[in-house]
Amino acid sequence: MKKMAKLAAVLMAAAFTTNTLAADITLKLAHTWPKGFPLFATSVDEYAKLVNEMSDGKIEILVDSRNKHKAAFGIFDFVKSGQYDIGQSASYYYGGKEPDALFFTTMPFGMTAIEQTAWFYEGGGLELANEVYAKHGMEVMLALNTGQQMGGWFRKEINSVADLKGLKMRIPGFGGKVMAKVGAVPTNLPPGELYQALERGTIDALEWVGPSLDLRMGFHKVAPYYYTGWHEPGAELMFFFNKKKIDSLPAWAQSVLRNAAKLTGYKASTQTFHASLENWATIKAEYPNVKVKDFPKEVIQALKKANAELIAEEAKRGGLTQRIVESQAAYLKKARAWTQIGDQSYLNNIAK
Amino acid sequence: MKKMAKLAAVLMAAAFTTNTLAADITLKLAHTWPKGFPLFATSVDEYAKLVNEMSDGKIEILVDSRNKHKAAFGIFDFVKSGQYDIGQSASYYYGGKEPDALFFTTMPFGMTAIEQTAWFYEGGGLELANEVYAKHGMEVMLALNTGQQMGGWFRKEINSVADLKGLKMRIPGFGGKVMAKVGAVPTNLPPGELYQALERGTIDALEWVGPSLDLRMGFHKVAPYYYTGWHEPGAELMFFFNKKKIDSLPAWAQSVLRNAAKLTGYKASTQTFHASLENWATIKAEYPNVKVKDFPKEVIQALKKANAELIAEEAKRGGLTQRIVESQAAYLKKARAWTQIGDQSYLNNIAK
Repeated sequence: MKKMAKLAAVLMAAAFTTNTLAADITLKLAHTWPKGFPLFATSVDEYAKLVNEMSDGKIEILVDSRNKHKAAFGIFDFVKSGQYDIGQSASYYYGGKEPDALFFTTMPFGMTAIEQTAWFYEGGGLELANEVYAKHGMEVMLALNTGQQMGGWFRKEINSVADLKGLKMRIPGFGGKVMAKVGAVPTNLPPGELYQALERGTIDALEWVGPSLDLRMGFHKVAPYYYTGWHEPGAELMFFFNKKKIDSLPAWAQSVLRNAAKLTGYKASTQTFHASLENWATIKAEYPNVKVKDFPKEVIQALKKANAELIAEEAKRGGLTQRIVESQAAYLKKARAWTQIGDQSYLNNIAK
Repeated sequence: MKKMAKLAAVLMAAAFTTNTLAADITLKLAHTWPKGFPLFATSVDEYAKLVNEMSDGKIEILVDSRNKHKAAFGIFDFVKSGQYDIGQSASYYYGGKEPDALFFTTMPFGMTAIEQTAWFYEGGGLELANEVYAKHGMEVMLALNTGQQMGGWFRKEINSVADLKGLKMRIPGFGGKVMAKVGAVPTNLPPGELYQALERGTIDALEWVGPSLDLRMGFHKVAPYYYTGWHEPGAELMFFFNKKKIDSLPAWAQSVLRNAAKLTGYKASTQTFHASLENWATIKAEYPNVKVKDFPKEVIQALKKANAELIAEEAKRGGLTQRIVESQAAYLKKARAWTQIGDQSYLNNIAK
């Protein structure tokens, strides 16, 4: 057997040297974003490259952006049906198809990026997500954490809860539900349509991400109030795998696909943090008229109350939903106690 | 050629199935820690396992702990000389061998974990570290970030700068230099000797890590004052590679070793954050007599002043040292501006 392995190694080396070995496995991936969209889409391109490198050319992933498949919010169905083998999108876009999908991107007043990442990997969060997605024949993995998202760009200043009544705002996920409960009119739009909607006043406000991705969208030109974040303290994008497909692959290929996804998830989060600080420096320097604001206390209290009521309502579904809600609440409590004597104490009392 | 590759693949598959293929490449790794030491050592064991998995059994890493090689702080020389191919330790332990090594673990009043990780990967920090280590025939990669470290365990309360005069404290790296400048007597001891030294009063205080690793050391039994952190806001362990050795390996093996190191660095940091929050919950519940304190403002101001003076002094070496100091200062400034309107604003004003 050893002899055979050596022969195999020699033949493999020869094959690779001449670089003519076609991929053994070809997989199709669809993501939500425009082609080449910074971070969200480029990190997927990097994933495909990493998988190819880590598999020594044996796995090729063909990436389709929304420019190709035309269905920004079709990723869940694409992967569930097997039309695509892999997807990348945000879980909370699919609350209409699977109510528990809402919990696995970020929660208002919830965990920060590091807290939530630890919950996913070490606190049972990813297992819960996969219990949910198994019902749809999928497996999910973390793909990119945006870090703290800003509360969004507003054409007018928000001074009270009354100012939110009837406010048309692009805000998806659980944050959108909370906004609706306090009287706003939330909507979701694909990224390509956001600027025009805000400029024309089709919407009065929007949240997109934060400095990392907001700068290039140009929102600051049409909406000068930039509110700090409350609703997405660490939004996680997800890789979606068709479970039957990935489980049918040889063990080495599964290992490459999963390990490369993990590394991409981490790497893309670091890149996004970097883009945030670079772009925030640019915004401050080049657009001094941007007004950074915290929402008034009254508004935060109203949002917090609406959020707690909505979560309690969801938890009433019991079973898996209740376990998710309880797991998040328990982890948040423990994680925040550590954050408080760790980073928060340092930032507030020591390093300032 | 395609035929040959297919034959090779068949033979490889046969060889792997029977699991009798010996590793093609065997590498020796030495780390600073006792065998099985949580996180710091176990993450290295996980690295070896990951490399073996990602290389389909073709790379085996033999891990020696300090129990075997007996030289906790000998990693730099081991890898430089080629006695070991890979090492894992903290860069700042080797300031005596390479003064610029001090800058690549953590700096007092410096960047938090996420800020520094972004500096290393996206802000040029790792390139600077590798400029330094290239002079010693090594390449370094991130291995584990401890997150915010606590200021340490003290047998007596610290009420003024005067209380630091003559205080014998285990505190390595740049933090130790700062402590010396304000009158304390810093020392470094291997982890296995810390508890006894503190119990017997050979030292009056020590900093080790934070809840993640302090709990099992038992320090709370002999020193009830637990100070919040100032000196190690995000300490990074490093993998050290013998440059000649890693560069001599085939491209696929280099890729596995580097990608697995990157993934391990991230994964181990998440595991450490999780251990911190779990152990902090345990300390609060089981040892209610532990007194968490911020250092008094006067003490922080004195430490900050000493730190700034020491960094300015180091920077006078010019050249690479100055570039490192300037790069860290510039990145810290930008990163902190983002942290302030991002996570800090959220923690202080919104989520509380």
